[in-house]
Amino acid sequence: MTKTNAGNFFEDFEVGQEIVHATPRTVTSGDVALYTALYGPRFAVQSSDQFARSIGYSLAPVDDLLVFHVVFGKTVPDISLNAVANLGYADCRFGVPVFPDDTLSTRSTIIGVKENSNGKTGVVYVRSKGVNQRHLTVLEFVRWVMVGKGDANAPTPKATVPDLPEKVMLTRLALPAEIKLNLYDDRLAGSPYRFGNYKVGEKIDHVDGMTVEEAEHALATRLYQNTAKVHFNLHTEREGRFGRRIVYGGHVISLARSLSFNGLGNAFRIAAINAGSHVAPCFAGDTVYAWTEILEKEEISGLESLGALRLRTVATKDRACADFPYKGKDGNYDPAVILDLDYTVLLPR
Amino acid sequence: MTKTNAGNFFEDFEVGQEIVHATPRTVTSGDVALYTALYGPRFAVQSSDQFARSIGYSLAPVDDLLVFHVVFGKTVPDISLNAVANLGYADCRFGVPVFPDDTLSTRSTIIGVKENSNGKTGVVYVRSKGVNQRHLTVLEFVRWVMVGKGDANAPTPKATVPDLPEKVMLTRLALPAEIKLNLYDDRLAGSPYRFGNYKVGEKIDHVDGMTVEEAEHALATRLYQNTAKVHFNLHTEREGRFGRRIVYGGHVISLARSLSFNGLGNAFRIAAINAGSHVAPCFAGDTVYAWTEILEKEEISGLESLGALRLRTVATKDRACADFPYKGKDGNYDPAVILDLDYTVLLPR
Amino acid sequence: MTKTNAGNFFEDFEVGQEIVHATPRTVTSGDVALYTALYGPRFAVQSSDQFARSIGYSLAPVDDLLVFHVVFGKTVPDISLNAVANLGYADCRFGVPVFPDDTLSTRSTIIGVKENSNGKTGVVYVRSKGVNQRHLTVLEFVRWVMVGKGDANAPTPKATVPDLPEKVMLTRLALPAEIKLNLYDDRLAGSPYRFGNYKVGEKIDHVDGMTVEEAEHALATRLYQNTAKVHFNLHTEREGRFGRRIVYGGHVISLARSLSFNGLGNAFRIAAINAGSHVAPCFAGDTVYAWTEILEKEEISGLESLGALRLRTVATKDRACADFPYKGKDGNYDPAVILDLDYTVLLPR
Repeated sequence: MTKTNAGNFFEDFEVGQEIVHATPRTVTSGDVALYTALYGPRFAVQSSDQFARSIGYSLAPVDDLLVFHVVFGKTVPDISLNAVANLGYADCRFGVPVFPDDTLSTRSTIIGVKENSNGKTGVVYVRSKGVNQRHLTVLEFVRWVMVGKGDANAPTPKATVPDLPEKVMLTRLALPAEIKLNLYDDRLAGSPYRFGNYKVGEKIDHVDGMTVEEAEHALATRLYQNTAKVHFNLHTEREGRFGRRIVYGGHVISLARSLSFNGLGNAFRIAAINAGSHVAPCFAGDTVYAWTEILEKEEISGLESLGALRLRTVATKDRACADFPYKGKDGNYDPAVILDLDYTVLLPR
Repeated sequence: MTKTNAGNFFEDFEVGQEIVHATPRTVTSGDVALYTALYGPRFAVQSSDQFARSIGYSLAPVDDLLVFHVVFGKTVPDISLNAVANLGYADCRFGVPVFPDDTLSTRSTIIGVKENSNGKTGVVYVRSKGVNQRHLTVLEFVRWVMVGKGDANAPTPKATVPDLPEKVMLTRLALPAEIKLNLYDDRLAGSPYRFGNYKVGEKIDHVDGMTVEEAEHALATRLYQNTAKVHFNLHTEREGRFGRRIVYGGHVISLARSLSFNGLGNAFRIAAINAGSHVAPCFAGDTVYAWTEILEKEEISGLESLGALRLRTVATKDRACADFPYKGKDGNYDPAVILDLDYTVLLPR
Repeated sequence: MTKTNAGNFFEDFEVGQEIVHATPRTVTSGDVALYTALYGPRFAVQSSDQFARSIGYSLAPVDDLLVFHVVFGKTVPDISLNAVANLGYADCRFGVPVFPDDTLSTRSTIIGVKENSNGKTGVVYVRSKGVNQRHLTVLEFVRWVMVGKGDANAPTPKATVPDLPEKVMLTRLALPAEIKLNLYDDRLAGSPYRFGNYKVGEKIDHVDGMTVEEAEHALATRLYQNTAKVHFNLHTEREGRFGRRIVYGGHVISLARSLSFNGLGNAFRIAAINAGSHVAPCFAGDTVYAWTEILEKEEISGLESLGALRLRTVATKDRACADFPYKGKDGNYDPAVILDLDYTVLLPR
């Protein structure tokens, strides 16, 4: 009988099951510095205590995606250690802002299971919630993963597929009510474009490319205490599907978000992720580019100063995005596309 | 006459000599974040201020091995800049916990010298002590290193070999008396196994492997202000013994400790290192695995809530540890073994 | 009409123009830890709060060059995104010390423009000033860069070349008046050599070499929010002038400064950079060495305890500096030289 955690297999999950994930994590200004070194974000609100205070925060909040990665990372040992693929995200809502020295922990509920017809794998739907030390929700999201069966003879469970929203309704967003934008300084923020300057259907090429190194994605993924083996173990991955380690999908999301500053510099808050898929794997040596389409614009009732943009940000590898590569007529993705992310940001009106 | 420190040679050391090492170091939450990014440790006490407070600390203490590396690093310019090999450790005891913003400094005493029969090198035994800004001991240890002679004609000193304990007696340990474990939460800690669940002779494969990159070990070693040339200078090492840089041995210790979370998740405190040897060098590109044997179990008189496990953790490179590779019948190590560490951890009873 | 910042071209600059650079930046102990991991500096004043307090600081100030990189980084999107070359620095003076949690921002004034005779590029002279959250100057410097024209037909502006000092006069230095050195501990500082021990014309080989990895310089450059494309995008640089990414010149300055500890351990403060040039590019895989010549010694009137050394530090790649490689009889640099930096440091008398 081993004391080693082998992770859960498909048959270990059942609908309604609640999981308290291990290793609460105090997020510090050290983590913020590493996040900056890993992705080079330039959003003024997260970069400067002084700028953050000028719009009503007590100090610079932690980047929303750093919160995402930390909350997500805790779920890996219980949910996706034996995952074949991370299939999708839905209903992801960011809650109260996180500040340095807040402590985050995560709990999950299994909300769906569906065995695949091959009898070897199944899809598990999980709702995870991250809270801070005052038990306030900082993030809530659903993801579904394909997980191998540990015992091929384990019985097929009753299929349950949760009803998930195509997008997060604005009325369900946690809005930063304390924010007042009359002192928001566009020059310091680095962009003259506010809510009113964007049009639905507009596409923005973020121009720059960022090459990923093995040390970078491994440092990042360990920082998030994410233990998925495919990111760390060259000795086994060399013999695996791709012959090398795979970059954590969240690393690509953060790269794309940082690149998106060039064109979306005032979009200082991610409010929700409506849907997302890691279309293809990213490897060290790949150069990540990104472009964004404005999908929707929404005014927020009761908040005069902020508007919400629903965005599609597409990341590619080794391919510039001046012509906005996406899907072909056949509905298949351009082979360079690695990320298709549908999310909602807030910015000053 | 140069102002450059060329390091000490064998003939520069004499028994009884005291050395104040340079560069006191304030350890911060930034260092802690880097430590997390470098090794991915998941012990809840060091990860979460809130968890640490629940068991009586004022906030999350700094990882014991980060303390070790910082205290050790200060000794390198004076002790081992000209070292041929770091031969062993003994009598290593961790003292009061270190918290972010504590300032560490190190002093050493030469406790033994013995010239080798080749007349070109000798072994120097050094006792080093790290203290915090309140002059409280945070770590004390003996190590012995083989150092080259600067002048082949320097006279052979009287051989003095200190009497070193085979293991640190529990009665000499600095025990965290302030700790109360009634609120210790096994689920948040990530392991259901407490002191009572382990048996002497039990072996645990920690399963996961972690590949080392050049940038990672160099970042780590600079973080510790360790200046040993073999870790940093490819231009000279390319012509050297191995044709490449060598990973700092302490980097491997930290990797093995982090991997050991999977099976030893409640072993939140390293109390002592009884003995240790870097069996073979580790290089960038190697994947490090580890396994542990329980050598001894000791109850601690006067401390109802804690037990001590004496462990042997063995690290390998590019070889999984399901069959616990160690020594062959001839007494020689399996060629994959790179670290053999005998140490004592504390965990809840 | 794109919302992406394409950077300014030569014709976009005019003398007298003022630029408020984006993204104010709170510098934290996390940034300090990363700086330590990237370069391994060992100056006691910056390493230890306790040592810094012993000489009159409130706590350990942030490394002067980290301040330089952060203030400089903010200018890149506006000044040098389309730069062909960073030609030189002058009149660079460090101001009040920066401590963790200070917020830095940068403004610049264009002080000269001169089109090159090829009609395709021109030189832009820029004075940049970094201030903290109390509007106190932390750094001021002039640099000049060669920038491409966006429109080859843009008219040639009237040439204006500013009159720049060959060196910063001591009387213009911001001196740390609060410093008292009677408790300065040479042993903890790591060097017995004070102002009086150095002689004009003396040369010091800093001995050690440090190899640069792609992940290291990319982490550093993103940490400084410096967006120059040549450091990050392998996909385009592979087709470019050098077939690979170029290391940010400031990275080499920091490596040389850290190496210079070995021989200049008491030179705890950079007061000024008189002139500097990146003689040749540095690439990942190169090992950086450095040596220093003492150019001038100056006593500082009114400050009994401090002296100023004007230094030339030369960095090379893949070449040890025991014979102080510099310029040949023809006035050309030794091919191994990559940096020629003329700067002024303060150290105890």
